[in-house]
Amino acid sequence: MRIQKIIIAFILCLGCTLPLRAQTETADYDIQTARSLVNTALSDTLGYHLLRQLTAMGHRLPGSENTKKAVSWAKQTMEGLGLENIILQPCPVPRWVRGPVESAYIMDIDGAAPCSLAVAALGRSIGTPARGITAPVLEVQSFDELKQKEDQAEGKIIFFNRPMDPGTIDTFSAYGRAVDQRVHGASKAAAAGGVAALVRSVTTKYDDVPHVGTMAYTDGIPKVPTAAVGLKSADLLSRRIRENPDLRVHLDLSCKNLAPVQSYNVFGQITGTEYPDEVIVIGGHFDCWDKGTGAHDDGACCIQALEALTLLQRLGIKPKRTIRVVFFMNEEMGLSGADVYGHWSGQNGELNMAGIEADRGAHVPRGFYVTAEPHVIETMQAWIPALNEACIEWIKKGGSGGDVARIKNAKAYIGFVPDVQRYFDFHHSANDVFSAVHPREMELGSAAMAILAYLISEYGI
Amino acid sequence: MRIQKIIIAFILCLGCTLPLRAQTETADYDIQTARSLVNTALSDTLGYHLLRQLTAMGHRLPGSENTKKAVSWAKQTMEGLGLENIILQPCPVPRWVRGPVESAYIMDIDGAAPCSLAVAALGRSIGTPARGITAPVLEVQSFDELKQKEDQAEGKIIFFNRPMDPGTIDTFSAYGRAVDQRVHGASKAAAAGGVAALVRSVTTKYDDVPHVGTMAYTDGIPKVPTAAVGLKSADLLSRRIRENPDLRVHLDLSCKNLAPVQSYNVFGQITGTEYPDEVIVIGGHFDCWDKGTGAHDDGACCIQALEALTLLQRLGIKPKRTIRVVFFMNEEMGLSGADVYGHWSGQNGELNMAGIEADRGAHVPRGFYVTAEPHVIETMQAWIPALNEACIEWIKKGGSGGDVARIKNAKAYIGFVPDVQRYFDFHHSANDVFSAVHPREMELGSAAMAILAYLISEYGI
Repeated sequence: MRIQKIIIAFILCLGCTLPLRAQTETADYDIQTARSLVNTALSDTLGYHLLRQLTAMGHRLPGSENTKKAVSWAKQTMEGLGLENIILQPCPVPRWVRGPVESAYIMDIDGAAPCSLAVAALGRSIGTPARGITAPVLEVQSFDELKQKEDQAEGKIIFFNRPMDPGTIDTFSAYGRAVDQRVHGASKAAAAGGVAALVRSVTTKYDDVPHVGTMAYTDGIPKVPTAAVGLKSADLLSRRIRENPDLRVHLDLSCKNLAPVQSYNVFGQITGTEYPDEVIVIGGHFDCWDKGTGAHDDGACCIQALEALTLLQRLGIKPKRTIRVVFFMNEEMGLSGADVYGHWSGQNGELNMAGIEADRGAHVPRGFYVTAEPHVIETMQAWIPALNEACIEWIKKGGSGGDVARIKNAKAYIGFVPDVQRYFDFHHSANDVFSAVHPREMELGSAAMAILAYLISEYGI
Repeated sequence: MRIQKIIIAFILCLGCTLPLRAQTETADYDIQTARSLVNTALSDTLGYHLLRQLTAMGHRLPGSENTKKAVSWAKQTMEGLGLENIILQPCPVPRWVRGPVESAYIMDIDGAAPCSLAVAALGRSIGTPARGITAPVLEVQSFDELKQKEDQAEGKIIFFNRPMDPGTIDTFSAYGRAVDQRVHGASKAAAAGGVAALVRSVTTKYDDVPHVGTMAYTDGIPKVPTAAVGLKSADLLSRRIRENPDLRVHLDLSCKNLAPVQSYNVFGQITGTEYPDEVIVIGGHFDCWDKGTGAHDDGACCIQALEALTLLQRLGIKPKRTIRVVFFMNEEMGLSGADVYGHWSGQNGELNMAGIEADRGAHVPRGFYVTAEPHVIETMQAWIPALNEACIEWIKKGGSGGDVARIKNAKAYIGFVPDVQRYFDFHHSANDVFSAVHPREMELGSAAMAILAYLISEYGI
């Protein structure tokens, strides 16, 4: 009787302590796994070497010959790394070409030598007539100011010169508050009677490199050409206008829009051992602007997503759920690849567990934003000790990214958040090249996403 | 009676809610103050411009003519910014000069053209004889391996070639595990019968730039010269040794140790309005190695400390406690400035509240390490919402820094922790120049220290 009591007490005690022990052991095991993933990423720097290959091929403007080659490279690279179910998924993309002519000059009235301005046509802009446009300039800081000065706009080049606020710590927020000029400046200019729009580059770096990006024409308003201006050129032009309000600028752009063409999303996966139909997507957008080689935006992030899978492979980890890397095509000019993948994700019979997007550059990891039910976010927050091995400090409610947001009914939409203080130095410009990416910072992002995908795969959400 | 009860109830109610309201309001107010400090730092970038001036003056090797000029500049700059009680505090510093000759070659036995190696004498090393040293080379990875191969060491140049581990996320920890070769390699080599020591540079960056730093001779062991080798040269030498174990290296160094000279700590302050004798020190070390211009190590951090004070000035904040910026002299070759300040701090009648040190580079803020009683650390952790405005994510128990650690009986010894993934790319090398510092990242560090100093000054600890 006494022994029975002891045995019962022992069993009860065991019952109480076992789950706790199991949980603690799992956490320790996960931290060890995380540490191994980080160690492998930092030691091998495979992703960094893949990015060197990719960027050496040039830019990846949607629909370009370069991009065709890059898509083939992506498929072959996934094959070479032993991924499964590698698919080229067709999607339509717009075709816009910059063309060989792209220049602007301040034309002095006294016939002095014209002064060159650093400009670059904005994506989807029409070109100027063959001999360019020469017109006086109206400088404004905002659409409101243009509205107030509408009587002065007729026949002029409208120069939107509002800087991206340097005082805001969240550079994405500052970007969001400045980029209206770039996207809608042309149509606002045309509506006021303007003949073209010049836009101060939306950037944190004070140099003379124009930062491009997409623009959009408003239906029913005449189309006029538009270009980004480097910061030093923008300041020069502004100063010269103050000295001589009647100066004229000559703008010559040969860019044009052609008929849409077909391109592809590229994806491959490690199929889950226990729940193969439960899918975790990790991805970025494969296309980029043509002034740099899309190193930070978003080549490195695509490679980080790919490397996350190969890190699991290299450590012999067989995930319970399917982890798929997706290189989305044409985020920059309309997210058509994301639309195609999103549509397919709703009817392919798979359960969409999570979509993890990386599209904020390849700087050192900070955290993850998650759009999901509160209990899902809480589950993921319990993984911070493992994620911290890759410098992830937090998981917060927040937006994911334009591409994965189109996946249907995912349990969690996740955005990788690196440090963003340097990102807009490079973004959409000739500064966005391989040398701007730091190997350790990039590799930590790969490891961070590998750890998160592994944990979702292992435990579900 | 009924009204009396209501009044009493009202008073009780007020008594209960007032402290809570006051606390909430203070927190909101502090967050607003923090935001203003960050906004001002990022918008003005005064510190970044001061760093440009400082680094344009060249290196600040202790005891050099350059450093004399930099000390004068520091005093004048503090005066120009309106600091109070600006003091040059004398301290002795060793005087080591690199000299004009610094070269190494692989001497092929077949008389082929010698192959140059990128080398730089380590600080405090003696030079070689006038015509240099030519000797065969013994490559080892560790002191243990040298011990095992002691019978092969006689008359040779000992080549310590153990890399800094790239797989460790904490680069300071990886540095700590590799730097014994640099500090003690010469004496270990000499004790084994070697004639000189070459040491693989302790760095995360794969280039051919030697990374120097201090070395120390062990008493009673003959002194032999020692130099750092760039990573590409180290790999080249290692490969050539495998091909031909008998190859010889010629090493020629003209560095030498001269008699110690006098230099100075420089400090200035904003005197506290309520508790002028309670002092918060913010500082870094003003000296640096001579291959770069000490931008990250530790020029930027000195300027960040100075800028923290000017940020409070620019916002019209009058701190309750004294906040003092200290530029410590000669951290690199023995912390003699810190010893002098530390001694003075114990007998000047002041109460040492806190010492905040920045000596991990001027990259984007991550957190603060604090050595203090647990309740002090908890107090400071409650300030995270304000500090987070400058990207500070955490406050943890940990080490401060060699200079402030010598302050007597401070309530808190604090180390500013920026991200450290890039730091050892630059550290102690010709890479450590102004262009390696990012204005936004540097300015956030200034703001982070301003916020922390302000909160300590306001609330005590």
